[in-house]
Amino acid sequence: MAKIIRVNLTQQTILSEPVPDKYFMLGGRGLTSQIVFDEVDPTCDALGKNNKLVIAPGLLTGTLAPSSSRLSLGAKSPLTGGIKESNAGGTVARKLANLEIKAIILEGIPADRSWYLLKITNTEATILPAGDIAGLGNYDTVASLQALYGPKVGIISIGPGGERKMSAASVAVTDPEGRPCRHCGRGGLGAVMGSKGIKAVVIDDNGVDGQLFTVADRKAFNEVARTWAKAMVQAKAGLTNFGTAALVNPVSAAGGLPTRNYRTGTFEGSDKINGTALAETTKSRGGRTGHACSPGCVIRCSNIYHDAEGKYLTAGLEFETIVLMGSNLGIDSLDVIAALDRRCDDYGLDTMEMGNAIGVAMEAGIAPFGDRKAALRLLDEAGEGTVLGRVLGQGSTVTGKVFGVTRVAAVKGQGMAGYDPRALKGTGVTYATSPMGADHTAGNLLPGRAGVDCSSPDGQIKASRDLQIMSAVIDNMGLCLFVGPLPPEMEIISRLLTSALGRPFSIEDVLEIGKGILRTELAFNRAAGLHSASDRLPEFFSMEKLSPKGLVFDVSDKDIKQMYSAL
Amino acid sequence: MAKIIRVNLTQQTILSEPVPDKYFMLGGRGLTSQIVFDEVDPTCDALGKNNKLVIAPGLLTGTLAPSSSRLSLGAKSPLTGGIKESNAGGTVARKLANLEIKAIILEGIPADRSWYLLKITNTEATILPAGDIAGLGNYDTVASLQALYGPKVGIISIGPGGERKMSAASVAVTDPEGRPCRHCGRGGLGAVMGSKGIKAVVIDDNGVDGQLFTVADRKAFNEVARTWAKAMVQAKAGLTNFGTAALVNPVSAAGGLPTRNYRTGTFEGSDKINGTALAETTKSRGGRTGHACSPGCVIRCSNIYHDAEGKYLTAGLEFETIVLMGSNLGIDSLDVIAALDRRCDDYGLDTMEMGNAIGVAMEAGIAPFGDRKAALRLLDEAGEGTVLGRVLGQGSTVTGKVFGVTRVAAVKGQGMAGYDPRALKGTGVTYATSPMGADHTAGNLLPGRAGVDCSSPDGQIKASRDLQIMSAVIDNMGLCLFVGPLPPEMEIISRLLTSALGRPFSIEDVLEIGKGILRTELAFNRAAGLHSASDRLPEFFSMEKLSPKGLVFDVSDKDIKQMYSAL
Repeated sequence: MAKIIRVNLTQQTILSEPVPDKYFMLGGRGLTSQIVFDEVDPTCDALGKNNKLVIAPGLLTGTLAPSSSRLSLGAKSPLTGGIKESNAGGTVARKLANLEIKAIILEGIPADRSWYLLKITNTEATILPAGDIAGLGNYDTVASLQALYGPKVGIISIGPGGERKMSAASVAVTDPEGRPCRHCGRGGLGAVMGSKGIKAVVIDDNGVDGQLFTVADRKAFNEVARTWAKAMVQAKAGLTNFGTAALVNPVSAAGGLPTRNYRTGTFEGSDKINGTALAETTKSRGGRTGHACSPGCVIRCSNIYHDAEGKYLTAGLEFETIVLMGSNLGIDSLDVIAALDRRCDDYGLDTMEMGNAIGVAMEAGIAPFGDRKAALRLLDEAGEGTVLGRVLGQGSTVTGKVFGVTRVAAVKGQGMAGYDPRALKGTGVTYATSPMGADHTAGNLLPGRAGVDCSSPDGQIKASRDLQIMSAVIDNMGLCLFVGPLPPEMEIISRLLTSALGRPFSIEDVLEIGKGILRTELAFNRAAGLHSASDRLPEFFSMEKLSPKGLVFDVSDKDIKQMYSAL
Repeated sequence: MAKIIRVNLTQQTILSEPVPDKYFMLGGRGLTSQIVFDEVDPTCDALGKNNKLVIAPGLLTGTLAPSSSRLSLGAKSPLTGGIKESNAGGTVARKLANLEIKAIILEGIPADRSWYLLKITNTEATILPAGDIAGLGNYDTVASLQALYGPKVGIISIGPGGERKMSAASVAVTDPEGRPCRHCGRGGLGAVMGSKGIKAVVIDDNGVDGQLFTVADRKAFNEVARTWAKAMVQAKAGLTNFGTAALVNPVSAAGGLPTRNYRTGTFEGSDKINGTALAETTKSRGGRTGHACSPGCVIRCSNIYHDAEGKYLTAGLEFETIVLMGSNLGIDSLDVIAALDRRCDDYGLDTMEMGNAIGVAMEAGIAPFGDRKAALRLLDEAGEGTVLGRVLGQGSTVTGKVFGVTRVAAVKGQGMAGYDPRALKGTGVTYATSPMGADHTAGNLLPGRAGVDCSSPDGQIKASRDLQIMSAVIDNMGLCLFVGPLPPEMEIISRLLTSALGRPFSIEDVLEIGKGILRTELAFNRAAGLHSASDRLPEFFSMEKLSPKGLVFDVSDKDIKQMYSAL
């Protein structure tokens, strides 16, 4: 029987609650956002006792639907001041589904301000002291917990970033090899977890194989799922072979590769950090591309990156990290980027927010662009919690404020992902309008999408809105966005849900789930004080032409304000 | 003939423009807010080229109306993100009135990012290079300019705080002795002036005695003014003799004296920093109370503070500085507080914002409460622009973010003045709702006001709203708030304006000016993204009881939301 685990840190109590009927079709982002909307005062202090952190697997997690093991975390964000969901792969979502846990809600703040561990097994959930692992990085945290609880547990943890309540703090989720390298990176959810005094959540599903989402016609469901998986293996070969680094070339060709704090849209060193370079480097050192970050993933866009000595350094070096830690800092070395990524994973910091913040610091003259050692040192300062490190760890907006820099590529306080909105205008509209802030996963309009010219303002509003709706659907299901947030996938999802529910579930029904999520999130944000004036890109994007194509962001404000009127 | 001087720093042009009719009855805050509303995009970057800094004397400045020489500065605030006006005494307002300058508008940003000086005389206005005085504190800046242009010029200047675009940066205005100790402190207007590349504005009214505001029936006007002045001399003797430090005792008796970052409402060392202590200390060292900060002031609440050797240290040591640099930091030494005040004046930083920020830093453990040397060192770091100093110089909200502290007494990003809203609930309502952020001058409901119990939630909404309207009237006139933002003064103002205009001008007409100002400011703020969710005190004020009286802030949110419905 599906349940919700409610953990109150103030009272140190754990309750197992039945799932309200209205949450039946919600999972992942849909469920975290709805619970945050239902239970959290939008005007509360994001790091205070009235915020809650919600952890949820997707609606389809645990079924045969391919690449459906994403784990969503949601809360009011200390970075954006609005509602936030951030999801990651790893093994935890699947384990929660096995345990038939629809969501975990962390609420309150421990009166003694100590560090705790939440341990969940098939038979019990317990709050345990965790003072001994406080201060450790995610890698040591996970090693310590695996030594205690076995190598097969799934672990959600924070590093020093979350402990220090940095707004760039991520939450780490262990991957199939037990490494803390999958991150719910965006929006400072690690700080929210830190504010609750929870250093880690250990999920042990040993000996159980429950079913969170009941499928009425299992045969039909599995048939659709298998056919879909098979087609995906072929269609996504580029991602499998080159990782998301495959995007470096097309984004560069579009002139939208953030370079030296968004000063230009192409980078002279891009050949050294693109998909081909990544595939060759990983292969030559005993690493690999084609790695699955979560059970049941057929796309396998992750990779394992070894250092020059052939030793494991990091896993899942992704496009956004490569760009924001690479071209955005003027750094053309995959080894340096991988070292930065490893540090971010260990400190529990979002690579995107930190790449933006260090870019702003370089803009302020703290270090020159291209200075590899300085980039590593700045990140270490964040990990160590020096004053400068704490500034950077608050993200690019605070860094810009502190150093008097106005060229800060952020919306609602959140740094942009690795796509310059002047060249990729649909993504720019998403940055401006998504309730999530400047988050590409909310609706990323990549070059090559049929029917839309990324460099023209025309049609971007509709394209972004449609993508945002469909991306919310994907996030609700626990699917990876790379299955495709597009009409064909909506049709497949409608067929899956028809089989699962034993009654017709149309494409319109599917889209209504996405629309409902956005409506809920927008309502929370309005009550939190985020209105249309917050739905804007920084003004330099409309004033400074982006070389080499000379583009500015020119989708009209008026159109952007109408964005959600038809939702 | 009254004129507006428009200075475009991008084009390096100066225009003298006629005053539009609709600005006829506006001056001071009324005029700066209206021009900002008319000309500045509310969503612009406050430190970007689209913001404007407006400088205006009051409507009655230059007339015989007593204490009417306040100078208003206005812009979009980098601290609050909303509209901002901050006013100060000094000699500049009167000189502008003599020159018949209704307002100066600074717009654009110099293409070469160099430092400039604006010099205005009876015959010309010129933009001059100021690279030689860049980096200087306000005292050296002023000394350097007085050496060049004579001791009698009026000077508006910024220190290193404004040059570094700190959100706590003030704008200094010279007092009758030519000292840069009167400050438009709040909202980071010094950073806006810094963003425009203007280090100082020199006003030379030598040889002119123009009249900005034409008075129809001068005899009647002057009769009202003289009677008022005479009455005030008597009524305000407490302020004359003890300065605004006279407020320490009553605010302490009300249990609302911010102490150690708002942890308690009384301070064991308050006797060492109250009005009596100030009067005795200044007198014994050759300083004084009863100093006029601007020409024509009959209240003379300013003071001149000498150090233990009898040498001038600072002028205008005020209640808010004494509290926020004193009890709020656990410091019970007037000498240390005066030294902190001097440094703030020299660096060009708001004593209130810095007192709040250092309090938050002490809360974070950067230094213990009561550590005098540490307080001085932290302020010096702000002046010197170390990383920690830059954090502090961004104010208490950014300081809290960087150090993970949620006990931050601020609204709309602006630190509170020296009145705890749990004990002084009317002022709390003003903090929450004023378009200016947590600014006591927007409507300060002090203990002893007839008909209102400061410690009860009852009646505070109406009391605050009435005070906000009347305070806006006072600010429009260029009057000092200490003349009294109350019905008797509104009546006097109606009589003054009736004489000036040569037609009846009722009390309702007077109040309508105040209401109009608030409506304009609120409209700007809404367009800038500040809605009712921004009109709230930090949640700790409703959760933590303030000793010794055990009060919380309990004016209902619902009532606060209705605050301006009747405006």
